[in-house]
Amino acid sequence: MRLRNNPKAYDIMKENKSFVILEPENCKNKWKDIFGNNHPIYIEIGMGKGDFIYENARQFPEINFVGIEKYPSVLAAAINKINAREEKVNNLRLMHYDAIELHQVFEKDEVDKIFLNFSDPWPKSKHAKRRLTSSKFLDVYKDILIDEGNIEFKSDNRGLFEYSIISLNQYPMDIEYISLDLHNSPESEINIMTEYERKFCEKGPIYKLVARYRKNG
Amino acid sequence: MRLRNNPKAYDIMKENKSFVILEPENCKNKWKDIFGNNHPIYIEIGMGKGDFIYENARQFPEINFVGIEKYPSVLAAAINKINAREEKVNNLRLMHYDAIELHQVFEKDEVDKIFLNFSDPWPKSKHAKRRLTSSKFLDVYKDILIDEGNIEFKSDNRGLFEYSIISLNQYPMDIEYISLDLHNSPESEINIMTEYERKFCEKGPIYKLVARYRKNG
Repeated sequence: MRLRNNPKAYDIMKENKSFVILEPENCKNKWKDIFGNNHPIYIEIGMGKGDFIYENARQFPEINFVGIEKYPSVLAAAINKINAREEKVNNLRLMHYDAIELHQVFEKDEVDKIFLNFSDPWPKSKHAKRRLTSSKFLDVYKDILIDEGNIEFKSDNRGLFEYSIISLNQYPMDIEYISLDLHNSPESEINIMTEYERKFCEKGPIYKLVARYRKNG
Repeated sequence: MRLRNNPKAYDIMKENKSFVILEPENCKNKWKDIFGNNHPIYIEIGMGKGDFIYENARQFPEINFVGIEKYPSVLAAAINKINAREEKVNNLRLMHYDAIELHQVFEKDEVDKIFLNFSDPWPKSKHAKRRLTSSKFLDVYKDILIDEGNIEFKSDNRGLFEYSIISLNQYPMDIEYISLDLHNSPESEINIMTEYERKFCEKGPIYKLVARYRKNG
């Protein structure tokens, strides 16, 4: 997600230090201290305006959530949206960071689950390596996840989803769940929607998969 | 595919010995003799009324095709349909056989490619082992395919296709190609349709994948 540049984005981040991480690298191996407990940590890469991760934090207080967003203006929009909500949550942190460097922010075993929601499809094949399900990124996720950790991926982009099935299969990862039309699956009842999903789910199917790193793979 | 029982099905098979195999087990390790050449052999499991395999045989004379059908009445319908065609092909054989026993009909390395088209979805999970992409059948295909052989699978059934991705991934096989909407993919131009596909492609997407056994997998 991109938004028009917000010159105040960094100011907004600084004004919300209670839940916005300003120096992500300082958190490495210290996430239990930051949250003040041993609860599992789920992260969302490309959190956009944060509806999905906020709603998760609200529904699952026994899990800690970290939302990661590449674009400061988008993160600022998420911060404003969360501040506008009545119900406050204390198991959520946000940061502006590039996913390819996440091994600088999380130690191996610090992350229990990774959410990728409606990631940029980078449709040109010369940009395939930028897709968040390319092997380059799968290497990074492996570096920070626990052994039994998994990746939950949703998309409405057919090309990206086809690419991702092949990429995860080749890596190799175990695909444990797949739906080629999530909103018409039994699982739709427990699906927490993103802003984007709410807007575009009428236009075609929402795809979802859950994949886990293969033992000794 | 099932049809009303045709009491003359076996008679129709016997009357067309020029291209219908009556004793499939006798062919094992003799397929080169049967076709009289060394061309690759592609088989279709569950050929239905045979439009797909006939059209393949017509378009690709340098490949030998074997159509396999579990139900005699369906095979009889395919035989009648092929006999009614003007253009004859000599690189096509048909047989009535159960796929789970195909290692009785083909030796290892005798088959270069397997087509599965619109296979019975067996939607109840207690029948999952009957699905033609379950590990039980993948074992049989591995027994008869060459090392570089692959499986091409088309379906309009979402549940079966989702199951198949997971089954092939777990086996493990390499998924080399996938389309979640074949008729709106660039590849649709070279797609040879089955009778079923022609009839039902308007109702929803046609899914396709190509998978290969993993080396040392």
